[in-house]
Amino acid sequence: MSVAVEGKENNNISIILFSGELDKALASFVVATSAASMGMNVTIFFTFWGLNVVKKNPPFMKGSGIMEKMLSIMNRGGHNRLPLSKLNMAGMGPFMLKKMMQKKKVPSINMFIELARQLNIKFIACEMSMSVMGLTKEDLIEDVQDVVGAVSYLDYAQDAKVNLFI
Amino acid sequence: MSVAVEGKENNNISIILFSGELDKALASFVVATSAASMGMNVTIFFTFWGLNVVKKNPPFMKGSGIMEKMLSIMNRGGHNRLPLSKLNMAGMGPFMLKKMMQKKKVPSINMFIELARQLNIKFIACEMSMSVMGLTKEDLIEDVQDVVGAVSYLDYAQDAKVNLFI
Amino acid sequence: MSVAVEGKENNNISIILFSGELDKALASFVVATSAASMGMNVTIFFTFWGLNVVKKNPPFMKGSGIMEKMLSIMNRGGHNRLPLSKLNMAGMGPFMLKKMMQKKKVPSINMFIELARQLNIKFIACEMSMSVMGLTKEDLIEDVQDVVGAVSYLDYAQDAKVNLFI
Repeated sequence: MSVAVEGKENNNISIILFSGELDKALASFVVATSAASMGMNVTIFFTFWGLNVVKKNPPFMKGSGIMEKMLSIMNRGGHNRLPLSKLNMAGMGPFMLKKMMQKKKVPSINMFIELARQLNIKFIACEMSMSVMGLTKEDLIEDVQDVVGAVSYLDYAQDAKVNLFI
Repeated sequence: MSVAVEGKENNNISIILFSGELDKALASFVVATSAASMGMNVTIFFTFWGLNVVKKNPPFMKGSGIMEKMLSIMNRGGHNRLPLSKLNMAGMGPFMLKKMMQKKKVPSINMFIELARQLNIKFIACEMSMSVMGLTKEDLIEDVQDVVGAVSYLDYAQDAKVNLFI
Repeated sequence: MSVAVEGKENNNISIILFSGELDKALASFVVATSAASMGMNVTIFFTFWGLNVVKKNPPFMKGSGIMEKMLSIMNRGGHNRLPLSKLNMAGMGPFMLKKMMQKKKVPSINMFIELARQLNIKFIACEMSMSVMGLTKEDLIEDVQDVVGAVSYLDYAQDAKVNLFI
């Protein structure tokens, strides 16, 4: 489970993506793909609302209990449905941001996920958050390689030069 | 005041908890207690809204000036009153999250604070934020060992392998 | 472009300021100026909403396209107009916080920017966010020394002991 290499100064970066907003997800992917293109090993640990970024285009209702069902409706996620952390304006904000990004040829989240795949960026998801939200590995896109606990995340973090919580 | 040990590669983690939301507080405590259980030295620096997490169950009104009094009403804090960073829904969100956590046997903030105590996680609080908010050490739970400035936080941070701002 | 010094254990700190709220901007500047006063080399990378902190007192409307114009109105920025991340209360929150800070002799953002200048804190701005938002270097205060990509930020981050995303 540990990836730490004793005595070797590493060139790794690990990002906890806790937030489920489009702008913060974009910031994560810009940093992650830039780092990977520089030859750094990149790990993104998706937790809490950040899991929305790697949810499959989700069904309307999901989960075994009534609360999980309610949460799945209110918090559907999937990279097409992410709000903004600011100026969300009932969905207009993400629409505007996407249009402006398109105009400036900035990749969409979808394209960033594809790019991350090509650059061998490691996607791992937080076991505890998934359990609390009633999600299983099948609810997530295939790019998520592992569902792990915080201890595994810390193995990556200890071995990284740069650690960010987003 | 400095805890840095020259020439020794340390196994420390330091977390700034700036946010006063239940979900972000939980994320901090999950990482902190996991790190401590792996043998890492953990320091949490509570600042701004994060001070709400370590406020005693607070009286309704507190502070010497009218603004401090107003702020103390609007921002009562205490770990039982933390909102969510998303889907707060007039308090329903934290209730649901707490219920779902209970069901999955995830500890509450209260239990995490107890666990942190047993694992010798160091709690320090930001002097400047406390002063601005009209708080004194007596307003905080006893687990907070020191009220310090940013320079002290940086002593811990410089000595840590992993630094997070939450 | 790289600032990394091979084989030298550095005493650097790099901060990504992604958020455009007054409280988070203050937290960044408190950490940054404390670090600089301890002799650390400090770099702040302003991106997304964080660009609002280093915008000149902005004109009402700005940008070439209709969306950029709309965004410039809704997201005017400038350090005098930053909201709070919590308890914003239609602008009352920042007013109260500023008053309380004044009373406790905590510097304003304006004074922190001046202090940062004296302490040689490096301000860099994110090229991609600026392009998406229709901003040019002329829209930013003169303290911003460079407009760079994420790769340049990572050069600083790899070389830093402490990295924070705020």
